[in-house]
Formats: sequence, C-alpha cells, structure tokens
Amino acid sequence: MYELRYFDNAATTVMSESSLRTYQEVASAYIGNPSALHQKGLEAKAYLQQNRARVASLLQIGEGQLIFTSGATEANAIVLESLIWRQQKGHVILSAIEHPSVSEFARLLKHLGWSVSFLNAPGGFIRCEDLQKALTKQTRLVSLMLVNNVVGSIQDIRSLVRTVREFEKQAGGRHIHFHTDATQALGKIRFSLSELGVDSAAFSAHKFHGPRGVGMLYNANPALENLSRAGDQEGGLRGGTENLAGIAAMTTALEEAYASLDRNLGQVGEINAYLRERLGSFTILSPSQSCSPYILNLSVKPLPSEVFTRMLYDRGFCVSSGSACSNNAKQKGEGVLTAMHYHSELAKSSLRLSFSNDTTLSDAEALADAIISLYQEHA
Amino acid sequence: MYELRYFDNAATTVMSESSLRTYQEVASAYIGNPSALHQKGLEAKAYLQQNRARVASLLQIGEGQLIFTSGATEANAIVLESLIWRQQKGHVILSAIEHPSVSEFARLLKHLGWSVSFLNAPGGFIRCEDLQKALTKQTRLVSLMLVNNVVGSIQDIRSLVRTVREFEKQAGGRHIHFHTDATQALGKIRFSLSELGVDSAAFSAHKFHGPRGVGMLYNANPALENLSRAGDQEGGLRGGTENLAGIAAMTTALEEAYASLDRNLGQVGEINAYLRERLGSFTILSPSQSCSPYILNLSVKPLPSEVFTRMLYDRGFCVSSGSACSNNAKQKGEGVLTAMHYHSELAKSSLRLSFSNDTTLSDAEALADAIISLYQEHA
Repeated sequence: MYELRYFDNAATTVMSESSLRTYQEVASAYIGNPSALHQKGLEAKAYLQQNRARVASLLQIGEGQLIFTSGATEANAIVLESLIWRQQKGHVILSAIEHPSVSEFARLLKHLGWSVSFLNAPGGFIRCEDLQKALTKQTRLVSLMLVNNVVGSIQDIRSLVRTVREFEKQAGGRHIHFHTDATQALGKIRFSLSELGVDSAAFSAHKFHGPRGVGMLYNANPALENLSRAGDQEGGLRGGTENLAGIAAMTTALEEAYASLDRNLGQVGEINAYLRERLGSFTILSPSQSCSPYILNLSVKPLPSEVFTRMLYDRGFCVSSGSACSNNAKQKGEGVLTAMHYHSELAKSSLRLSFSNDTTLSDAEALADAIISLYQEHA
Repeated sequence: MYELRYFDNAATTVMSESSLRTYQEVASAYIGNPSALHQKGLEAKAYLQQNRARVASLLQIGEGQLIFTSGATEANAIVLESLIWRQQKGHVILSAIEHPSVSEFARLLKHLGWSVSFLNAPGGFIRCEDLQKALTKQTRLVSLMLVNNVVGSIQDIRSLVRTVREFEKQAGGRHIHFHTDATQALGKIRFSLSELGVDSAAFSAHKFHGPRGVGMLYNANPALENLSRAGDQEGGLRGGTENLAGIAAMTTALEEAYASLDRNLGQVGEINAYLRERLGSFTILSPSQSCSPYILNLSVKPLPSEVFTRMLYDRGFCVSSGSACSNNAKQKGEGVLTAMHYHSELAKSSLRLSFSNDTTLSDAEALADAIISLYQEHA
C-alpha cells in the first residue's frame, strides 16, 4: 500500500475543517427558511444577507451583484440560458477551451437558430485579434474563461473585454454581454472583477475548500433574467430555498482563502517551480507566463495519459489526464489542448497536476520521483 | 421572551442529527471528484452509486431513473425546460395550485409560443373531468403536484395520469409527459411512483430533515433531455460536480423518514386531529379527506394573515401565511386558495400550520391556546 497523495485539486478540493464546522453550526442554528416572515425566517434571511455582504466585500462588488447558486455550472447556465428569452436569434462567441458547462450550450443555441463561434487559444491564450475578427453586429454574448482548467493559462480578460467594448462603439453601441467562468481563479489568484470589466462571472465553492453544491454568479448586468423566477429567491435570478449552511461554509472557505492568498500562492508557486524543474525533460503544456501555479500540465509522450495516470494511481498518486469532467465527456481535455494548437501526440499524453495549500513539497518530490521512474521504465 | 415553537415545516425542516453527521463524515472521507478516474474519484463514484441504489430501493424505482439535483426547483426546471428543445410549439397543462417553481415557467413557455392551461382545484383537488377537457392534440406536458404545499390536499395523480393515457389512445398514441412535484409528499405519506404512473417527479431533501440544496428527479422517460449536458454528470441530465456529502445526508434523512413513516404519520395525525378539533370554530381550508396531516390551513377571518401571523411570531410561534416562497412572490398562496374556489376573504386570512415528527402535542396545545386567545382579543 502506498500513501495517498492528492494532485487533483482543480477537480475538487477537500472541504476545510473550518468550512465544515460552519456548515454544521449554521445547519443547526438557522432553522428557518429565509423567505419566511417569522422570527426564524428573518434570522435566516439576515444571516444570508450578512454572508452576501462578506463575500461581496472580498470580491469588491455590490451586494446586489452577488447571486448564490448551486455551483459554477448553474451560474454559467443562468447566463447562457438568458439568451433563450431573446426573440431575435443572434451570435455567440465562446472559446474552444471553455469548460463543458459553458461549451455544451452551443448545441442548444445552434438548435434554436443562434450561430456560435469558437475561438482557439494558441499556446493556451485566447487572442484579442481573433476575438475582434469573430465579433459581428449580431453578437450578443461573449463567454471566455479567466483561468483555463486544463493547463492553468490566465486569459487577459481585461483586454478581451476592451476589444468587445471598442467593437460595440463602432457597431452602434449595442451592449454585448461578456461573461467569464472564473471557477479556477477564485481564492487562488488575485483579480478584480470591476477591473476586468466583465458583465458576469461564475464561481464554485468546492474549488477553494468550500462545500460542493454551492457557487456564485457575479452579475453586473441588471437586465439578466433566468428562465423562471421560481420562488423569487436571489432577486428572481435563482429560485429554490437558499442553502444557507452551504453558503455560510463557502463564505468561511473564501475568507480563509483570501486571508492566506499570497502565502498560498508563494507555497504553491514553489511546488510548481520545483516540479517544472524536476520534470524539465518533459514537454510542459502549461504556459510559463500568465499561468496559475495551481495547475501544471505536462506530456509524457509517447505514453497515453490514461495508462500513465493509472500507473500513478497504483502508486497512490491522484492526478488527472485532463479535467475531471472530461472523463465523462469523452476526452474533452484533449480537444482543449488541440484548440491550444498542441500536437495531438502531446494532447493524448497529457497529465494534469493540480495543487492546493495542502500540497507539500515532499509530496511533490515523491510525485516527481514516480513520474520520472515510471517514464523510464515504460517509455 | 416566549419559547420558540416551529410550525413551518412545509417551508423547511431542521436537518436531523444523523443527516448532519453523515454530511460531516462524507465531506471528510470522500475527497475525490466522482468523475475523476483515480482511486479517490472511484471511491467517490462508488459511494455516489451506493447512495443512488439505497434511495432507488426506498422509492422502488430503477437506479437509472434517479437523478440527483440541487433541489426540487431544479428537478422541476429540468422537466419544464426540456420543452425548449422541441421545434414545434405545443400545449402544456399545469394546475393553478402548483408551486411557483413549476407555474413560473408559464411565462417563458408563452413567450416561446406555447399555450398553457391552468386547472383550478375546487376544494383543493384537481378534477379528472377538468383535465380531460383541457387536453388537446397539441398537449405535450402535464404537470400536477402530488401534495399541495398550501393546504396539504393529496391529488389523485393515479386517476389524473389514467385520464391522460386514455386521451393519448384516442388521440393517436402520442405520449404526453406527466410530471408531478412530490416535494411535500416524500418521507411524509406513502405513495408508489410506479403505481401513480407518472413519467417524472421532483423531490427536495430539506423537506424531510435532509440538507438544503439537494434534491432529486425521478425520471422514467428516457427521452428527457436537459438544456446542456455540462460535465455529463447524472447521465447528462444534471451537470456539475456531485454534492456527495449532501446526497449522502439526504439518503440518511430519507432512510430515517421511511423507517418511521407510519409512526410519524400517526403522531402528526394526532396533532392535526387535535388542532382541527380545538380550532373547530375556525374555517378549516385543508380538506378533511385525502389530505396530508403534515399541513393544516385555516382562516382567521376577518383578521388578515399577515397581522395574525405577526402576532403569533411575537408569542414565539413560527407559522406561515401561505407558502414561504409566496412571501417573496406577492401572495401566491392567496392565488392558490382562490384557485381552490375559496372566497378571497378566507384566502386573505389564511394561516398555514405545518408539522414534523419533532412537533409535540404540548406545542400544539400552546399554539391552539394562542390562536384562540389572539382571535378573541382582536377579531
């Protein structure tokens, strides 16, 4: 039996002790439905709003701009589904490296008569000139992620937004909604939503040691509308009884993440740098600049990802051959790497190592040893 | 200061100790993403499937028919939104006493060119003859709830489904999807999904002492499709990393509820009967037959609901003037009562008392005393 070493934190992180403690306390203490008008309901509502204020303060946004959801998948869905209300069908721009919770909407949109353009991301990065060329007078929505979940590249969202805003001016001023899936960014790297200039952004708690099943939508666009107001919770943008314990547990996890963000970045950065050096003989698919240190993607060509990750599992290492979701969705990670213009040989042999503040240098040393020795044995 | 007494269990129940313990244990023990292919992912996936099997066994359905969601609101949404895929617009039948998570979709459907019929429910019950009259060759979906959340009436879903199936035969055999929102039924009254004959049903964990933010969709209809497959979780019907701790906590709560279902029914039935008798001078809006004992709705006319519930809160009692959701959504509970053909005077003065296995007879005695004395003082 090998000791278990977890390098799949981009798929999900362990809920922190304090986040779990918050869940427990809030589930017992706040028994009312926040929509109820009695004492227990009002207490729950006040506590919900207090959590909203705390998170909004960390994100430096208005409280009214923050919608609690069941995760980033739902937050992304609210934005993309809002197009269904439009009588006139238009054009949507996505990148070819989006998470499937965004890109899978292309099928529906095309079915409904929309046109969808996918932007490649050579070397991991979506280019402003490609976005510029793709924009048309029919473009209604652009959705480009902040940190890519397969290689960690940080997109220059600020410049991409500026490209859209310049086009808007030329094209007569009609607003184009700019959404960013920031799931792999929050609690890990520093960014300012207002500086990025996006209209909306999606987040998920379980990527920063919060609970699964909880996430958020940043919504600066007051016109955004969900398909149904349901019970009218969250300003009509997300119906259903609020998961107060989960939301509070997310708040705790996010406050923890922000309190130690720089320290964690430093620590994870060291681990990343160490692995980049130790594994320097492999082709590193994560860019060397503008990349989250939390993700390191490399190729073990000619060995296939699945074979190599399996051999690593047998030695106790949890790594991914792409994104966890891509394991369901037939090698989507591979498609993302191809859209980055990596040769299919590299894409088919990619390993994604992803870290958290729990990751230790000695774990990284053991991982490097295992990768090197397994490669020498089998390649 | 009065002791707090909670009579709003139809809005939300307190998470049980064992459900909360399960949440805690699973959040710590199953750290992998169920979609990941490494050891921790496979463990999480196996445990997810084990939970699915346990719940499916309680519901006497196939494991493949059970989809975990973020709640009943989402489960209802998956069914109603599936219509968006249809090229040809058709006709939908809802009842006028549905929860807003169902009825609020009427706006979108009409906007998209569908026609929507609402069936009234005189005395609390949707009538087969009204359904029969409403069915047309264009009808594609019927969504009628199992237990009404405002008064507790149990609909004769079996006969209503039979009405639809008979119409199908006459109309040439085209299948009409029959959905039921069973949120107020699960863990409280006995029913068999296969005997009801519905194509799909929605459930929410926090109504039976499970966690908020978790629910289920029963789906017997293999053709059902979500707007996006997202990460392809839950057979493509509900994307997003599975909330394993929440799902396991729901399983625990449901197993508890089923283990003591008859005992709880007896206990809650006694409380209900006691209150019906003690409050016999008031107009009881909950039907005396085919009604869940978990809900008792009565009128304190001429006093308005809001005033009376507020006076009760001041004495420590948590009751509702309608459904909790209706407090957001501008007196929807009142509209439901009007659709039951209650006079608006009764509807405007309704109190909803709702119980759980935690409710004691002495709490009910105190509540009856308070209602009677407040009424005598103010009416």
